[in-house]
Amino acid sequence: MARLVTFLSDYGWEDDFVGVCHGVVARAGAGPVLDLAHGVPRHDVRAGALVLRRALPYCPPGVHLAVVDPGVGTARRGVALALREEDRVLVGPDNGLLALAAERFGGVREAVEVSRSPVRLEPVAATFHGRDVFAPVAARLATGAPLRSLGEPLDPAGLVGLELPAPRVEGDVLVAHAVGFDGYGNVSLESEAGALAPSALGRSGAVRVAGRPARWGRTFADVPPGELLVYEDAYRSLAVAVNRGSARAELGLRLDDEVRIGPA
Amino acid sequence: MARLVTFLSDYGWEDDFVGVCHGVVARAGAGPVLDLAHGVPRHDVRAGALVLRRALPYCPPGVHLAVVDPGVGTARRGVALALREEDRVLVGPDNGLLALAAERFGGVREAVEVSRSPVRLEPVAATFHGRDVFAPVAARLATGAPLRSLGEPLDPAGLVGLELPAPRVEGDVLVAHAVGFDGYGNVSLESEAGALAPSALGRSGAVRVAGRPARWGRTFADVPPGELLVYEDAYRSLAVAVNRGSARAELGLRLDDEVRIGPA
Amino acid sequence: MARLVTFLSDYGWEDDFVGVCHGVVARAGAGPVLDLAHGVPRHDVRAGALVLRRALPYCPPGVHLAVVDPGVGTARRGVALALREEDRVLVGPDNGLLALAAERFGGVREAVEVSRSPVRLEPVAATFHGRDVFAPVAARLATGAPLRSLGEPLDPAGLVGLELPAPRVEGDVLVAHAVGFDGYGNVSLESEAGALAPSALGRSGAVRVAGRPARWGRTFADVPPGELLVYEDAYRSLAVAVNRGSARAELGLRLDDEVRIGPA
Repeated sequence: MARLVTFLSDYGWEDDFVGVCHGVVARAGAGPVLDLAHGVPRHDVRAGALVLRRALPYCPPGVHLAVVDPGVGTARRGVALALREEDRVLVGPDNGLLALAAERFGGVREAVEVSRSPVRLEPVAATFHGRDVFAPVAARLATGAPLRSLGEPLDPAGLVGLELPAPRVEGDVLVAHAVGFDGYGNVSLESEAGALAPSALGRSGAVRVAGRPARWGRTFADVPPGELLVYEDAYRSLAVAVNRGSARAELGLRLDDEVRIGPA
Repeated sequence: MARLVTFLSDYGWEDDFVGVCHGVVARAGAGPVLDLAHGVPRHDVRAGALVLRRALPYCPPGVHLAVVDPGVGTARRGVALALREEDRVLVGPDNGLLALAAERFGGVREAVEVSRSPVRLEPVAATFHGRDVFAPVAARLATGAPLRSLGEPLDPAGLVGLELPAPRVEGDVLVAHAVGFDGYGNVSLESEAGALAPSALGRSGAVRVAGRPARWGRTFADVPPGELLVYEDAYRSLAVAVNRGSARAELGLRLDDEVRIGPA
Repeated sequence: MARLVTFLSDYGWEDDFVGVCHGVVARAGAGPVLDLAHGVPRHDVRAGALVLRRALPYCPPGVHLAVVDPGVGTARRGVALALREEDRVLVGPDNGLLALAAERFGGVREAVEVSRSPVRLEPVAATFHGRDVFAPVAARLATGAPLRSLGEPLDPAGLVGLELPAPRVEGDVLVAHAVGFDGYGNVSLESEAGALAPSALGRSGAVRVAGRPARWGRTFADVPPGELLVYEDAYRSLAVAVNRGSARAELGLRLDDEVRIGPA
């Protein structure tokens, strides 16, 4: 029985990209594939890295395929990474996408470069390594092939990392950044922001967010519909929401915009 | 072999919410999950209840997970409900979402409150009971755990019900309501509307819908492209469509708006 | 063990149409279903046919369900087609949707009309043959039923074909057509366009596309962000893209619009 293959990408659901990768995995005798998310904003490597890091702990160990790959077809490497903790393998481009998830599970124990993997589909299309390189490698890992049979050994120290914006404190104001949005318009701040929050802000009662009145809450319904809420989200990061509305729209936020949280 | 788990929600497909719940089910040794629908309009409990009722008869009996949960994290209960007909169990919030499907299969035989289920993922996030409460409960039911091992017994008589708008007749005019829309812009009326339709309206030929000329039909192509059609939809409810167009947009309808169907 | 069922449609992901078809397949003892694509533009039979043709070679042989069906409920036939090459069966409406994929695998060896198949779900809804006719037929084929037990024999010569626009050459200009778009806004030209391209256009360096400067490339990153690229796409067709942008939007293209590629 093949190991579980999970799949995250920015391919979206409109096209056949995801389905064709499922087909490639099925042809190799693995699957069905567990789709983690395919609505990562197009080409947004960091957003994909953040989602992968937070989602994998909820999945059983397996082969974790991830493709957000604006540099597809260039010199950027393709990699498969065996992690130190649990029996997990990541497969995808070496552009930072896998960096946070790898770190979450103790770092990389063994790495191979798979761009010219013996199991790739030839001719490899310059624009679709998900199908021609990464899916075949993931499928073979799922059916038991050893990592080193699928590519050239690589020094994990040379893997591409990922920069995240850093929250800071100015007096009694926490200055964090909008590092992610979900489909409800809820806004995630950096995962470190919570620990940094000045004690003057408390953890209950009134605050100001981006100059507007808001309240600390545990869940959306702790404020009336249409009002602003600061809370710890389902992944333990500080977040900003509007009950039954969109904080993203309400505050006009774009990725990496500063979000200032201060006393009422 | 685990029982089938089906899943309906308003989580949408952009985020990792659905995928993470799949992961939780897989970790517990169940799955793959059959996704019934995740595009239920956000927070629209009634729309979710209507879709669940109409979709389940087409699925084999199993564990039917459903999450449309604007009150997540409040005092609203989470429940698992064994139904009287067929061997079906519903899992989700006790906010009316499960009410119509339960009624469709003879009502509830046995109920438990699962908010503090021994299989929940601790710490339970106040905003994501789908992941931390409902998915683990559904997975354990699928792998054979008895209902009562997963929560506290609950009197089914106390479960939250659901109100639907009621169609009525005024002279030879049927006054129904837009209770659902699909992605094509087809408009579903209440399931009881058909039985109520005055005989003067017939079942073929010309009628007026919302003041505009329309025709009875069996299928979209019974009227020319761009024209209005009244028909019995695939779930035997009266519905209004525009052939190769959107009746929702054409008539400017919002949820629960009255739709008047009268003689030509 | 049931054979693989793949599924392509224009049902979209918002509604329960796809999920209910999965349910019908599961009830018949087959599945899980491999979703190839459900974001085919609504009612666009040709777009569906093009996607099916290019995607199937990446999937293992199986039962390939496809539904883009603007004429559902009319006299158009429903068919199941055993192909000459590999052990593949196509199931769907006889409106051209299956024509290109059938041709890709050597044509049709045996055909049956399934609209009144003994395994259909009665009463068949006039607007949802995917659920009531095609999914039950596909599931029975997957669990081993012989083709001819599922419908009336049909002469393959009478199946509906599909017209595609034809590229042409005017002097040293290639005049092709936009026959498909993906979610990134990349534009596919006819698959024959590449072979027809005048040698004056070369395969590298500068060209003009729709009157604008562009370059030949192998992948998106071969041009600076925001600039136009002509390339061979992942399915070996000529295509036009904007690196990290949308060529569709940039050039204001609609389906079948001419795309002129000439010397710089």
